[in-house]
Amino acid sequence: MRLFKNDYSILAHPRIMNALNRCQNEENIPYGLDYHSKNAEKKILETFSSEGNVYFLAGGTQTNVLFISSCLKHYEGVISCSSGHINVHETAALEGQGYKIILVEPVNGKLLPSKVEEVMNTYQDEHMVKPRMVYISNSTEIGTIYTKQELLDLSNVCKKYHLYFFIDGARLGSALTSKDNDVEPSLLGSICDAFYVGGTKNGLLLGEALVINNKELAKDYRYHIKNKGAMLAKGYLVGIEFEEAFKDSLYFDIARKTNEVADYLKDGFNKLNLHTLYSPTNQVFLTIRKDQALDLIKRYGCEKWEDKGNELTIRFVTSFLTSKEDVDELIHYISTL
Amino acid sequence: MRLFKNDYSILAHPRIMNALNRCQNEENIPYGLDYHSKNAEKKILETFSSEGNVYFLAGGTQTNVLFISSCLKHYEGVISCSSGHINVHETAALEGQGYKIILVEPVNGKLLPSKVEEVMNTYQDEHMVKPRMVYISNSTEIGTIYTKQELLDLSNVCKKYHLYFFIDGARLGSALTSKDNDVEPSLLGSICDAFYVGGTKNGLLLGEALVINNKELAKDYRYHIKNKGAMLAKGYLVGIEFEEAFKDSLYFDIARKTNEVADYLKDGFNKLNLHTLYSPTNQVFLTIRKDQALDLIKRYGCEKWEDKGNELTIRFVTSFLTSKEDVDELIHYISTL
Amino acid sequence: MRLFKNDYSILAHPRIMNALNRCQNEENIPYGLDYHSKNAEKKILETFSSEGNVYFLAGGTQTNVLFISSCLKHYEGVISCSSGHINVHETAALEGQGYKIILVEPVNGKLLPSKVEEVMNTYQDEHMVKPRMVYISNSTEIGTIYTKQELLDLSNVCKKYHLYFFIDGARLGSALTSKDNDVEPSLLGSICDAFYVGGTKNGLLLGEALVINNKELAKDYRYHIKNKGAMLAKGYLVGIEFEEAFKDSLYFDIARKTNEVADYLKDGFNKLNLHTLYSPTNQVFLTIRKDQALDLIKRYGCEKWEDKGNELTIRFVTSFLTSKEDVDELIHYISTL
Amino acid sequence: MRLFKNDYSILAHPRIMNALNRCQNEENIPYGLDYHSKNAEKKILETFSSEGNVYFLAGGTQTNVLFISSCLKHYEGVISCSSGHINVHETAALEGQGYKIILVEPVNGKLLPSKVEEVMNTYQDEHMVKPRMVYISNSTEIGTIYTKQELLDLSNVCKKYHLYFFIDGARLGSALTSKDNDVEPSLLGSICDAFYVGGTKNGLLLGEALVINNKELAKDYRYHIKNKGAMLAKGYLVGIEFEEAFKDSLYFDIARKTNEVADYLKDGFNKLNLHTLYSPTNQVFLTIRKDQALDLIKRYGCEKWEDKGNELTIRFVTSFLTSKEDVDELIHYISTL
Repeated sequence: MRLFKNDYSILAHPRIMNALNRCQNEENIPYGLDYHSKNAEKKILETFSSEGNVYFLAGGTQTNVLFISSCLKHYEGVISCSSGHINVHETAALEGQGYKIILVEPVNGKLLPSKVEEVMNTYQDEHMVKPRMVYISNSTEIGTIYTKQELLDLSNVCKKYHLYFFIDGARLGSALTSKDNDVEPSLLGSICDAFYVGGTKNGLLLGEALVINNKELAKDYRYHIKNKGAMLAKGYLVGIEFEEAFKDSLYFDIARKTNEVADYLKDGFNKLNLHTLYSPTNQVFLTIRKDQALDLIKRYGCEKWEDKGNELTIRFVTSFLTSKEDVDELIHYISTL
Repeated sequence: MRLFKNDYSILAHPRIMNALNRCQNEENIPYGLDYHSKNAEKKILETFSSEGNVYFLAGGTQTNVLFISSCLKHYEGVISCSSGHINVHETAALEGQGYKIILVEPVNGKLLPSKVEEVMNTYQDEHMVKPRMVYISNSTEIGTIYTKQELLDLSNVCKKYHLYFFIDGARLGSALTSKDNDVEPSLLGSICDAFYVGGTKNGLLLGEALVINNKELAKDYRYHIKNKGAMLAKGYLVGIEFEEAFKDSLYFDIARKTNEVADYLKDGFNKLNLHTLYSPTNQVFLTIRKDQALDLIKRYGCEKWEDKGNELTIRFVTSFLTSKEDVDELIHYISTL
Repeated sequence: MRLFKNDYSILAHPRIMNALNRCQNEENIPYGLDYHSKNAEKKILETFSSEGNVYFLAGGTQTNVLFISSCLKHYEGVISCSSGHINVHETAALEGQGYKIILVEPVNGKLLPSKVEEVMNTYQDEHMVKPRMVYISNSTEIGTIYTKQELLDLSNVCKKYHLYFFIDGARLGSALTSKDNDVEPSLLGSICDAFYVGGTKNGLLLGEALVINNKELAKDYRYHIKNKGAMLAKGYLVGIEFEEAFKDSLYFDIARKTNEVADYLKDGFNKLNLHTLYSPTNQVFLTIRKDQALDLIKRYGCEKWEDKGNELTIRFVTSFLTSKEDVDELIHYISTL
Repeated sequence: MRLFKNDYSILAHPRIMNALNRCQNEENIPYGLDYHSKNAEKKILETFSSEGNVYFLAGGTQTNVLFISSCLKHYEGVISCSSGHINVHETAALEGQGYKIILVEPVNGKLLPSKVEEVMNTYQDEHMVKPRMVYISNSTEIGTIYTKQELLDLSNVCKKYHLYFFIDGARLGSALTSKDNDVEPSLLGSICDAFYVGGTKNGLLLGEALVINNKELAKDYRYHIKNKGAMLAKGYLVGIEFEEAFKDSLYFDIARKTNEVADYLKDGFNKLNLHTLYSPTNQVFLTIRKDQALDLIKRYGCEKWEDKGNELTIRFVTSFLTSKEDVDELIHYISTL
């Protein structure tokens, strides 16, 4: 039996561990200036058609706070869905560094350009925070994904209002390998000022790759990283991981597999006439009778998402280790409840 | 003709200016340690039945940020209506100092205890900001006021959840002298951890009196004020003003007069069959045809509050200098539009 | 008998109070956008030959923190003498906003260009704070003043290393009217990125005029001021004061008089064969037997400056109200000790 | 040939890598709540006789900033040697979070209790930062170590003045296994409020173990960690490493070996009549002719420490992989210069 709690319950994909083992006795330059990090940067820039810079960091909240704080003055704000990770699940990390989030209501977990327009029409006066950035997650916090057209529209509204555009890619792999996805990786290198390629939730031991397309925003960036306590002495650790993940299509292969198993899980739920929210990625949201939900939470480590009275919505997440057999076991178990 | 733009368009009430003129050649100890400040503190504590401390500051945003930042850790948040002054009209001053606001929807401009309960049921996990304070304004940003029972209920829910309770009193005078008010000033000294007595919007040259009832929260407060750049060298300036304002009932007399003139204005609007929002204090919100609204904004300096398509809601504010004759002139003008 | 404690023990110079009284019934636009503030800005820019902007603020620590924080990223530092006001007497206000001070040893209270060179040679690596600004006070914290050549040299070293140059002018009037001064006010408009014209210590009720010569640094400055809680609702209060102070030579006349009385005081000490530190402005530092020092501290409110074993150095400050008769009384008293 | 650049040029000690490999397929609870982290905490508390809590973090600067920022108000400061890592080599990370360092001159790299007394006698007024903590590193930035008596004296002066006492243990292993050391690990659990056990510089892939002895200071600590962006999703990664390092004496064995090789290196230098600074740990500071120094820097990656005109002081660091043969090769090379 396997947990469905999240996609970071296991140290690392075997190829990542093997890469580390291979490099164990190498002497490397510290602080991310090593060969592996340079090589990984090159591969990532190629993959996403970016002409910018890549910085390797330890975690997602850290990466979000680092990038947003490097762009904004303290009187400027970042527009985000109220469901955005930076608003809900980062313990005020961004505000803690001195930055306000301007909240808008999501539609299907996503930020619409019309909401950005509304904000710009409202915030026009020096007694209000000045909007300066748009933040989205892809895939979103509820597992939905942006279409190419939606991203282009957001990019355009950002240009219109001189807003920076930042994409949180904690689960970018899952978004770009979803069967519903129409976004080429190469779009990422030009459509936004920065995005990050999540490693922690996609088979790495730890690490996120922040890609800053807009080179002006990368000025003195290593000073900024150090100032925020986020510069890893053994930066080559994350460099080696990403070098391996982007040596070939490993990064996307891992993500695709988690999506396929998640789709298999959704099919399983459907066959049982159980209701799931639309999510074309590796997070699956099931609404089910409360007693059954509590049983599943206990047994499979699912997270409770929303209380709907007699029912609960709970979240199942698949990872690179989740197999169809694991899903079969789960579906069988539910059928016996 | 007089403007209806706000209640801080004029230097100071004559008695305040006279008090300053009287003290002009006195030598006073700096930084708020002078006799006048001590005396003003004593009178304010008596008026509001507080056993705490009073600190004199220069402005409202500064006072809000100072107090909230002195109570919270950076992982803790303050619950406020989305319409709250700290959220809307302070240019991210609070977030700029590192603190998150937890937003709830207001009802008639006010924060309901049930909303606090909802927040406490939702924010229970270390990946979310930890609620630690409730912030309200009285009178509210739309001129409404809290009843005694509403304040008691909020105070109780704060106690239940170990939340600090802070009342923004930028227009406290106007609230406590409204004809609909049932709150005795003496309630303020015990019902909350701190509140402030607004001077800038009630006839003073400048100055707000922060009353900290909860003495634990006043520890090292002068260090905190200085650290935030808010300690006035000539603190006795504000001390002299508040000493005069609370020498007798001047503070409340000023507020009552502005309310009475505001009521007279609402009557005038009603007689013209014009629609105003309910507000028992010195802010009057009129919804009127857009062309007329724009004309009034231009002539009387009213602020635009809300765009309702063919109509606008605009705000009229009365100050201690606004007379019934000023209102008559305004009403007459509107009747000619 | 008059205190010699500081230069802000008295509300305001009579002409300043008169100006306020004259304007008492005027309706003014709030937040510093009024006619008086515009007019005062114009006069100050003319006086100092600046083509920049002027912002009126409430106090010196606030002004220092505001300007420095608007220039620096959090990984950048400001070079200052260890004796600098921002380092010693502002309760970590600057660090509290997130900025490090790079300390160098003063010579005669002043910062030498060679010290800036040393810092630039040392701080060259992303693991150290990046120097980005030079801060000096004129007059200095021990009453000395910079010569024209010294300011030019500092300005040049700043240009060489792309450092901003900021002059704290809490006692700028006293510096520029010292009998030893060779700096024209018009030099200030071009030699540095910003400076401030201190009002609180030179006869105003309250207020400092921050002059930003470098217009790039003034971008969105009103947002910044509001974000730091420093925007005064009745900004016209400070505007009226500075308008009066720069209507003619009042600002400098006040300062010159305090210097003259301070010189008279130094002469008095010299005649008694008492030792004073060199200070050509309105702060006088006397080293005297400890028991006598303590007596003077008690009687005249002098501040203790340095403990030298059997002797203390204590500070006497003259203000616009200090007369030669006050000095005579003091000198006579000392002669009887 | 091996570099002598630092002690973090190699991924990890073989036993650490083996431990990770062993756990690769385990499902673990995220965010540091897993079994391995609990077990590692238990072993560390036992080793250092602490009754507190242990938190696993990614790096040293992060750990310093986290702990200090959790203790201090923004008007409070931390006393440190001017040579302290937090002052020199953390790119203003601590000030960036809003906290001032009160600098004192070191003696032999160490902070003397008398310096703390001096600070306490000087900083007594609300216009100055309020001292609240003492920070030291052991081993120090120049490789020296504190004696038991020195630590006891510092602890006592901290108690006398109600100052927190925090020990940066980035190279704690090296200090406690130095042949000159007389401090038992068990002293650490009671003598200070907190310390950290450095892993990154002592054979771990990454990770520092912050031990908070004073349980009051640990309140809501996980919220604080998350708020600072420092909570690792796969916290069990660091847990597994420390579990292995403290399973037996591995942590100290690694450190002892690096010290022994460093001693062997110092002997080698002495035999060549070359001058080294006193350092009983794994950092070796050699003063040598400039041309020779530059050659060694180029060949062995040594860091330049101090320019002494015709000579340079350069730093050699030994790590767990440095062998006597590596030293022999280095000494031989120098003898040929």
